[in-house]
Amino acid sequence: MPQEKKSFTLHDLIPGGETYRQCTPANAWHTWWGDLCVELDVDTLTVLPPKGKSSATVLFTLDQVNRWLEAAGKQPVHTLQNVSFPYADKPLALLQSNDGHLLLDWQQGDVAWSVTFDRQAANRDWHKRSRHLAYTIGNNLCITTADGKTISVTSEPEGIKCGQAVHRNEFGIMSGTFWSADGQRLAFYRMDETMVSDYPQVDTEARTAEYQPDKYPMAGTASHKVTVGVHDIATGKTIYLQAGDPTDRYFSNIAWSPCARYIYLMEHPRTQDSAELVRYNALTGEKDAVLIVEKHAKYVEPMSPIIFLPWDDTKFIYQSQCDGFNHLYLYDVEGKELAQLTKGEWVVQELVGFREEGKEVIVATTEISPLQTNLYAVSVKTGKRRLLGNGEGVHSVQLSASSNWMIDCFSSPESPRCIQLVSLKSGKITKKLLDAPNPWDGFDAPEISVGIIKAADGVTDLYYRLVKPVGFDPAKKYPAVVYVYGGPHAQMIQNTWNYATRGWDIYMAQQGYVVFTVDNRGSSNRGLEFENCTYHQLGIEEMKDQLQGVAFLKGLPYVDADRLGVHGWSYGGFMTTNLMLTYPDVFKVGVAGGPVTDWKYYEVMYGERYMGTPQSNPEGYKNSSLLEKAGNLRGRLLVIHGGNDPVCVPQMTYSFLKACIDKGTHPDLFIYPGHGHNMLGRDRVHLHEHITRYFEDFLK
Amino acid sequence: MPQEKKSFTLHDLIPGGETYRQCTPANAWHTWWGDLCVELDVDTLTVLPPKGKSSATVLFTLDQVNRWLEAAGKQPVHTLQNVSFPYADKPLALLQSNDGHLLLDWQQGDVAWSVTFDRQAANRDWHKRSRHLAYTIGNNLCITTADGKTISVTSEPEGIKCGQAVHRNEFGIMSGTFWSADGQRLAFYRMDETMVSDYPQVDTEARTAEYQPDKYPMAGTASHKVTVGVHDIATGKTIYLQAGDPTDRYFSNIAWSPCARYIYLMEHPRTQDSAELVRYNALTGEKDAVLIVEKHAKYVEPMSPIIFLPWDDTKFIYQSQCDGFNHLYLYDVEGKELAQLTKGEWVVQELVGFREEGKEVIVATTEISPLQTNLYAVSVKTGKRRLLGNGEGVHSVQLSASSNWMIDCFSSPESPRCIQLVSLKSGKITKKLLDAPNPWDGFDAPEISVGIIKAADGVTDLYYRLVKPVGFDPAKKYPAVVYVYGGPHAQMIQNTWNYATRGWDIYMAQQGYVVFTVDNRGSSNRGLEFENCTYHQLGIEEMKDQLQGVAFLKGLPYVDADRLGVHGWSYGGFMTTNLMLTYPDVFKVGVAGGPVTDWKYYEVMYGERYMGTPQSNPEGYKNSSLLEKAGNLRGRLLVIHGGNDPVCVPQMTYSFLKACIDKGTHPDLFIYPGHGHNMLGRDRVHLHEHITRYFEDFLK
Repeated sequence: MPQEKKSFTLHDLIPGGETYRQCTPANAWHTWWGDLCVELDVDTLTVLPPKGKSSATVLFTLDQVNRWLEAAGKQPVHTLQNVSFPYADKPLALLQSNDGHLLLDWQQGDVAWSVTFDRQAANRDWHKRSRHLAYTIGNNLCITTADGKTISVTSEPEGIKCGQAVHRNEFGIMSGTFWSADGQRLAFYRMDETMVSDYPQVDTEARTAEYQPDKYPMAGTASHKVTVGVHDIATGKTIYLQAGDPTDRYFSNIAWSPCARYIYLMEHPRTQDSAELVRYNALTGEKDAVLIVEKHAKYVEPMSPIIFLPWDDTKFIYQSQCDGFNHLYLYDVEGKELAQLTKGEWVVQELVGFREEGKEVIVATTEISPLQTNLYAVSVKTGKRRLLGNGEGVHSVQLSASSNWMIDCFSSPESPRCIQLVSLKSGKITKKLLDAPNPWDGFDAPEISVGIIKAADGVTDLYYRLVKPVGFDPAKKYPAVVYVYGGPHAQMIQNTWNYATRGWDIYMAQQGYVVFTVDNRGSSNRGLEFENCTYHQLGIEEMKDQLQGVAFLKGLPYVDADRLGVHGWSYGGFMTTNLMLTYPDVFKVGVAGGPVTDWKYYEVMYGERYMGTPQSNPEGYKNSSLLEKAGNLRGRLLVIHGGNDPVCVPQMTYSFLKACIDKGTHPDLFIYPGHGHNMLGRDRVHLHEHITRYFEDFLK
Repeated sequence: MPQEKKSFTLHDLIPGGETYRQCTPANAWHTWWGDLCVELDVDTLTVLPPKGKSSATVLFTLDQVNRWLEAAGKQPVHTLQNVSFPYADKPLALLQSNDGHLLLDWQQGDVAWSVTFDRQAANRDWHKRSRHLAYTIGNNLCITTADGKTISVTSEPEGIKCGQAVHRNEFGIMSGTFWSADGQRLAFYRMDETMVSDYPQVDTEARTAEYQPDKYPMAGTASHKVTVGVHDIATGKTIYLQAGDPTDRYFSNIAWSPCARYIYLMEHPRTQDSAELVRYNALTGEKDAVLIVEKHAKYVEPMSPIIFLPWDDTKFIYQSQCDGFNHLYLYDVEGKELAQLTKGEWVVQELVGFREEGKEVIVATTEISPLQTNLYAVSVKTGKRRLLGNGEGVHSVQLSASSNWMIDCFSSPESPRCIQLVSLKSGKITKKLLDAPNPWDGFDAPEISVGIIKAADGVTDLYYRLVKPVGFDPAKKYPAVVYVYGGPHAQMIQNTWNYATRGWDIYMAQQGYVVFTVDNRGSSNRGLEFENCTYHQLGIEEMKDQLQGVAFLKGLPYVDADRLGVHGWSYGGFMTTNLMLTYPDVFKVGVAGGPVTDWKYYEVMYGERYMGTPQSNPEGYKNSSLLEKAGNLRGRLLVIHGGNDPVCVPQMTYSFLKACIDKGTHPDLFIYPGHGHNMLGRDRVHLHEHITRYFEDFLK
């Protein structure tokens, strides 16, 4: 007799759940010291030989470190998992704490260098060569130099932020400081938000609820103004790039020339229909040249700064979707295109690095499948590509100092998580560091399959994922829930473990539901045209494709077409509500989380890229507004919102409720006070209990 | 065959519904000109003889009025329903518009007097003898004198309000201006709120949601400071009563001496355990005397200003609950109690006026039944009482100039609405002005009965109301919903038409529910001890009594004890939630509207009277907090809140949701964006659809 299999609880399946860890594939942490792979444990760092059977050696231990720290009069540390090795050729380990950085020489058993700084320091950006640290205190930018001096780079009033990411993190912007290669000059963003409306967030956990204004530029309203400053450590001077009036313009993708004398960045107008690569003199701020101009009838969306070839300061790699897919182009500093390095109906997802020895650029691409991310070395001379590692699943890697090796972590439908060392010379796997067992062994997990259906255009292939109920009986009729996201920059189905099925989908399958997802046109990794067909009419084409999914579902003999539900969050909340209101005969029950209900309440950068402004595209805004459709609600719709959502502001949901009340329809509601756009932490389990209960109440 | 009876819709039964008017008893509007009763219609004013069959005569018509106004160069009016007759002996009708007052001499067919003023004027208080008008513009107080001059009485900065009601309308305070009898001096409130916390309300209907701060002093936090000013028209000077430091004190029940030289008011400390009647010199502001001091171990709650006898300036009537029931006491101006005029285990609800001819004071009391309001004339000399009009139902009256007549409007279980003229001399009804027919004729209305059960103390009688399902079949088992309020100053069951049954109760009876209400201890019209037994532990005794009601319900053979629901608003929302959490085995479904969830979030004046402060009564606050009990939720509880509720602030509900999330329980939620404490207007129908649906979903 086989042993009875266990059932999942939501705590097993939802991040934040008490037993989630046990049901997640095991992990391990590694980093490079030069070309030596170091395994990072809490109390021991171990050097792993790159191949063969030679044994691992301990680099140093937590006990040792704390003895060295104590001797140097420093506070002890509790884990070694955050240690890094900035210098390939020196036995120096970087330890970062709340109020200081230090370099430990483990061969001398001593602190080789240290600085302290304000523990309020945020947005920390340490430059390993110069050892200067840039950071922000409140809305201003500071530097603590290698010798421990603190420089106040800016002293702006409230409403002007320096040294932080701008443009609401669109256009690939993740930080607000950019060190030159020598670490002696710091470029930084300065963002004037004084003209931007405050969205009135409220903290209801205070003794008396408190007003918390949050600058939020809504589509069609006044946007912030960004400039780029450069601070020179040697002169102590700060200059600003002379880019002209910053009103209604974006400045993105900042990159330094290797010589530290020029700054390159992308400039684009608020209309987002063009972008220019511009070079500035970093010493004077003068505009030096416009190197590349891109235009598109819909939008141009630069996401990756240029990167210079490590072996040739006169050439750089520029990424563009201009041929319909994101690819690499080699340019010289005069702005002359020398070669298209990659080409094909697949996308380069990331430029990971360079292998100088082979004059290769290392990239992650979808060449094997739109559902995969695989690594390639591309010859800069010939454009020839070599697969690195296996051709399965989704990979993320760390290159060694020489880029002759990489730590390659991947997951595939069969492998929960696998970490291995790969030789970039041979492209072969030389050692397995981790092969995580299936954490669901012993559980009664559902059957998951992935397939292809046609989009509503009749031509395009769409990937779907189907999760069958646990204990599936083909003779039965099951209710089905469509889980949807549907927006740009995301893809729900990937060739990772269980095809990236969400824990809740598994739980619902266990409760007796078919769970179905299709990545409609408008989603990512399929090229420009696939994604931009939604331009100026968000929701319309996406819903048509979702209805193709519904038609497929209805064709399954075990799906009860009278019991279809739909659930999604954020863009998926928009899609869920829209589907409920646009196709009231199709869906009986929906749960929409943190939805956009009218794009006029969304922010300028993301919203206007796709929708233009309410002034320039009134028809499109009207057609995509769920407020206009509020009277169509016939099924049961639960709307859930984070009480302090700074992304899709609560006004989205309150406006929708008001529209429904005006029209006499009856959505249901839940609010998570104090939460932002996604309920993270332990409340995420509560959230999924709540969502589940709603389907159990009305769809079962 | 009898004709099929109609069913009610919510639009028939809920105020704001499209057909609500048709299902409400007919009404008529009357006023007095001296001792002549005038019927107010939109286009005609008719004088009705007080008795006998002599015919009604037209006083004047809308057409006439507008011709007179046009001739005088004034704007026309659209209705005569707001006309009043300030002078018993003059043919002058007062017309009030947005920006002016005028007196029309209908015998001359002319405008006899007029003034204009700022149409922003709020809190208008016109004095008929002097014809001066007091009003507020923003936070300041103005007067437009009879000859049209405008005086800015105060010029305070934002945060200080003058001429408005203070202390959040507790202690019977309904206005902020008080004219002396001659209309030459104006007493007014000045309230400094600068030290009070702002509650951050948010307008989500603006283009970008807008912050709307609202001064809200929460229990135990800094309260506003009130002083009383007096403006003298003749001198143009304003003085303030020298009452000392106003911190944590209340000033209520302002009254003028007939000679206009003294002001009487009640002074009480924030602890509310005492109150003093104090006299001030209105010319100098000096404190003149403390006439009466009341103390109580729980609270003293003065609600009615003293009133001088019209025929004797040296004596006044003082109302007090000092013997356990609100009664009238005759005092002289030295503060000597001359007589207790009324006495008994019933309450004087209102001093309506005086009948000088008989030296009688006219009062409304509960003497006949706690469910009734009947009028009596009480001899000031002997205390003897005479019933005025019939002894049925609930009456409200308007006395004629001589007080020899009254317009008496009443409702009783049998009479939807009846208006009649009553002679105060004889106490007899002399004429019927309206006898509204039953507006529910032709509808299938449920059976409603009222009865008595014992309170949890085993002694006290409680009144309940039972509504049986339409088409009642004693052999069936019905679900039952308890509708509850339960707080002080209110009574749900009265001997008015249908025993004051709410429209929603009728609707639910039609949907097949038993609907039950009991006025627990703590509610009004039953005397001090009945009401103050809840002191420092709101909810506890009230719930015990509600459970007595449940026991009664369970004893009814046709009530399904497994399907009990509960619904209430405001204090009733507090009770509903509390009952769901305290007796999770009793109630299966609850709908709580605008609930108090923790008294620490309620305001100082009302909250601290019953609960003290969180600092002084931590145990009581804890025991009455629903946040503490959030983990007990087992049934289905829908919490509904007005998105901008300024009375029970939204923090009440958000804090409760957070507590439930923390404890892993799952209430349901709905928010009415832009609404205050009660959903009024057409959305009230939506609200009751929503409430009904919840019971239908989970209790049916």
